[in-house]
Amino acid sequence: MPDLFPAASFDVLRGRISALPQPDAAAAQAARDRQGSLTKPPGSLGRLEDLAIFMAEWLGTERPRIARAQAVIFAGNHGICAQGVNPYPQEVTAQMVANFEHGGACINQMCRANGADLSVVPLDLDRPTQDFTQGPAMTEAETLDAIARGAAAVDKTAQVLVLGEMGIGNSTIAAALARATFGGHASDWVGPGTGSDADGMSLKARVIEAGIARHSSVLGDPLKVLAALGGREQAAICGAVLAARQARIPVILDGFICSASAAVLHSFAGALDHCLVGHASTEPGHRRLLAAMGKEPVLEMRMRLGEGSGAALSLGILRAALECHNGMATFAEAGVSGG
Amino acid sequence: MPDLFPAASFDVLRGRISALPQPDAAAAQAARDRQGSLTKPPGSLGRLEDLAIFMAEWLGTERPRIARAQAVIFAGNHGICAQGVNPYPQEVTAQMVANFEHGGACINQMCRANGADLSVVPLDLDRPTQDFTQGPAMTEAETLDAIARGAAAVDKTAQVLVLGEMGIGNSTIAAALARATFGGHASDWVGPGTGSDADGMSLKARVIEAGIARHSSVLGDPLKVLAALGGREQAAICGAVLAARQARIPVILDGFICSASAAVLHSFAGALDHCLVGHASTEPGHRRLLAAMGKEPVLEMRMRLGEGSGAALSLGILRAALECHNGMATFAEAGVSGG
Repeated sequence: MPDLFPAASFDVLRGRISALPQPDAAAAQAARDRQGSLTKPPGSLGRLEDLAIFMAEWLGTERPRIARAQAVIFAGNHGICAQGVNPYPQEVTAQMVANFEHGGACINQMCRANGADLSVVPLDLDRPTQDFTQGPAMTEAETLDAIARGAAAVDKTAQVLVLGEMGIGNSTIAAALARATFGGHASDWVGPGTGSDADGMSLKARVIEAGIARHSSVLGDPLKVLAALGGREQAAICGAVLAARQARIPVILDGFICSASAAVLHSFAGALDHCLVGHASTEPGHRRLLAAMGKEPVLEMRMRLGEGSGAALSLGILRAALECHNGMATFAEAGVSGG
Repeated sequence: MPDLFPAASFDVLRGRISALPQPDAAAAQAARDRQGSLTKPPGSLGRLEDLAIFMAEWLGTERPRIARAQAVIFAGNHGICAQGVNPYPQEVTAQMVANFEHGGACINQMCRANGADLSVVPLDLDRPTQDFTQGPAMTEAETLDAIARGAAAVDKTAQVLVLGEMGIGNSTIAAALARATFGGHASDWVGPGTGSDADGMSLKARVIEAGIARHSSVLGDPLKVLAALGGREQAAICGAVLAARQARIPVILDGFICSASAAVLHSFAGALDHCLVGHASTEPGHRRLLAAMGKEPVLEMRMRLGEGSGAALSLGILRAALECHNGMATFAEAGVSGG
């Protein structure tokens, strides 16, 4: 298999995405059979059984183990903030990156609690993307660069990748990507984000519809949509998702913004099959997005923080699912009647 | 405060239950204030914030920590099995207890994954309770003995107690207790349990209604209901819940059977305020039971295994909530704008 990156153009990348690895059906069946032999009523571990089989099919083994989990948080700044879509100054992005680096943010605690190594990847924070109401947010070259930097951040020795993001204004970017990918009206996808009120949400929707009108010619081409309306951290998430897929590493996506970023790849058939969504955010567009993506979230905790926090929390559930899958006795081993 | 146990009679125990400790409102408020100062949008950790504040109010400190978590699984056998309510032989209860003791069951893996010490308490497995269609399942003395053994199993040095159960036939016991406590018809509370089909569920409902008719004179008196329709592991769960409350230890209840056991105490005002329910079981009566108890489950994983598995899984969520609560920087500490 050729390396995905560097890719000289969207055309080159598009071709490579169509040749990504597929799940291991034999490993999945072996894991399913093992679940049926363990000392419990069949199916009684519910979602945990599904998660164990999912890990088996991507890691390609009946008894998958997580020796190393990586969490990567991408951060970016956005020209769309010139439209007043976020009440916080863009400096907060760099301040929060410093908080990640000093260990004081939620994601640091989540990674420690759930056994993930954290990588923080700020992407040109002093050079925001362009305001998408005025032109494309990024050039093709800028977009490919951000995708490649996302891919390069992935540790190929990990057995699971947790993804997250930080970027003042990026709930507007995410809603624009979701609107472009799945249709509807911008108001279907807009929510309060970090702290917008009803007027702020109306503004966000108007700004997005203006961007959609301006870039209507690229709708239907996911990579061009990403360039026109996205941001560097959204492109990097796509790159990380693709690099993980090439290495057969299962991915846990976070909430609305992270999911909407990866959802750009939804139109490449099966490209997100190796991705779980860690939790359902209270950001109102997330439930619609999950339905459009065909994904059932692992957790529902009324969280809406971003920065990978819900995805990292769900890693603990995944670990427990594998502990049960690998560690439980079979009916035969335990001498229990009824197997 | 006098010790809860031994209690010479239901009357004595009833009086002591009415004098149990109340939550620490000042610690809860301090924890709430701390949540508001952490580097995240207010409320954005959703349920995790509620869980941290809950732990603060019961452990009586702004920054609660779990140094030791205990899981206790009570096991019992039931005379009602003579009515054919369960397709498995009662020997499976002892076989599963052996599986717990040898480390091969789901709960063993869950405890290891989530950092709980496991205690397994089999209660006279060779001496099933009486068939409640023929008379009271237990005498007052037997019931008090099982309650006291449940209380004695609680490690008073733990900061959280996970409860679970095992007992062939005990989904019928649980449905009978729920029917007696919250009304409705037995068919509202009956489900497949370990493996009953539609005919099996009809039989369970008929058996329960026969028991309710026989013991109609004790409905309204929770301790007498427990004696008439319960089992030893159900009584022990009540005892553990009470002993934990006396020691101000928060409790995590498991699925339908564990919740229905503790729910016997629901009519003592506030007696279950220190209890979380770890997950919503797919056993159909559990959702109705949660609504009647006014409890929101922590997790929804389509699990229906019992043995404390869902409660122990949710311990990981509780731990992560406290890691965030105690470990995150405040806006002032991190120098982030917007706090």
